Amino acid sequence: MIFAAVVAGGVGSRMNLFGMPKQFLPLGKSEKPIIIHTLEKFVFCKNFHYIYVGVHKEWIDYTEELLKKHSLTDKRIILVEGGKDRNLTILNIINAIESNHGKSEEHIIVTHDAVRPFVTLRMIEENISALDYCSACDTVIPAVDTIIESKEGNIITSVPKRSSMYLGQTPQSFKISQFKELFSQLSDDEKSMLTDACGVFTCKGKEVRLVRGDVFNMKITTMSDYKIAGALLGGDMSD
Amino acid sequence: MIFAAVVAGGVGSRMNLFGMPKQFLPLGKSEKPIIIHTLEKFVFCKNFHYIYVGVHKEWIDYTEELLKKHSLTDKRIILVEGGKDRNLTILNIINAIESNHGKSEEHIIVTHDAVRPFVTLRMIEENISALDYCSACDTVIPAVDTIIESKEGNIITSVPKRSSMYLGQTPQSFKISQFKELFSQLSDDEKSMLTDACGVFTCKGKEVRLVRGDVFNMKITTMSDYKIAGALLGGDMSD
Repeated sequence: MIFAAVVAGGVGSRMNLFGMPKQFLPLGKSEKPIIIHTLEKFVFCKNFHYIYVGVHKEWIDYTEELLKKHSLTDKRIILVEGGKDRNLTILNIINAIESNHGKSEEHIIVTHDAVRPFVTLRMIEENISALDYCSACDTVIPAVDTIIESKEGNIITSVPKRSSMYLGQTPQSFKISQFKELFSQLSDDEKSMLTDACGVFTCKGKEVRLVRGDVFNMKITTMSDYKIAGALLGGDMSD
Repeated sequence: MIFAAVVAGGVGSRMNLFGMPKQFLPLGKSEKPIIIHTLEKFVFCKNFHYIYVGVHKEWIDYTEELLKKHSLTDKRIILVEGGKDRNLTILNIINAIESNHGKSEEHIIVTHDAVRPFVTLRMIEENISALDYCSACDTVIPAVDTIIESKEGNIITSVPKRSSMYLGQTPQSFKISQFKELFSQLSDDEKSMLTDACGVFTCKGKEVRLVRGDVFNMKITTMSDYKIAGALLGGDMSD
């Protein structure tokens, strides 16, 4: 079966605005919350059997209300409680999937940040089809800016060759059984370091294929990002 | 003396629109060309003795007309012919500086991409003051997206630790005499690899300090970037 896992577990420590996590902020002239923009893209993809959404437990009721308010009544959407970080939220979703639909080597999952509302159907579908040939894939764009490494944060340590460098976005997709097996082999230190699933596969020597993202598929993390995203949807940038 | 070097030598092979290089495209409701937005920021900084602009020879007359049309009549602005790539354009500007104002170990230069119109006075001034303590500095922002290395372009090679990774922007600033000395030591292969001045300093083991950039200080390279930049200025995003 094919599952989506939209990760919205955060409580918004980096951008506290209107007293709510950033995935719930209104975006564009329609004032539709970011997470609703994102979920609409997933609902549009008919390949998914179920679309799981990991939300902090204090925001589950609120999210349910939002879905109703914005007529997102697709029966495939299932809310589950998020974990302390991205990977733990994904593991909670995996546990819910296996509990609801059983274990299978054929289960694949397309994970996505709720705060990337400009994901496209093309990216989602290419993630799904990439898994015909490998265990994991990652959506990326080539680096346009030079990438700089600075270990201490004040002086350049190295300037890696730009043509080999990419920016990782999401979706990140993989076979559920493989991820569980690899994650269980990680030490606690590795778990805290490897904040995304593709990092887990790469660290354990598994092949992760690249899927082409888009510069528009931005992650809304800061106030600047939020303004850019609003502008992309034709919102007012004057304040 | 303190010089600016605004690099606008390109002829726009990556984004050919309206038959002109991208630095000349109109931006925002005012329809002011990108390069004019950029130059206005530099003119605003009173520290500069001269503001050199490197432009492809076929576009020098056009640029002169633009400056007049947009009342950029500041006597500090000097147009010079660009070179085949970024570093060669900077070298052309350095040659013009030394020919016009003589050689000096005290000459510093703040280089900037013409297609980054959202540079701020704060960034420019921090570049200048960083050179009180070192030979070169680079304007960067912390990586928000995971950085991915892929040597072949289809499979992840490595996922470097994100907290050590930054995206390089411009301004990049340095002492002119040091850059000339280091650049003259490069092999032809190194010259073609090191497409930015800070890479030259790092490659030769010199300390390059980081200056804080901003996500807004984007480089307009593709049509998507151009749309985002227009939106940031309140232009029409509907097409």
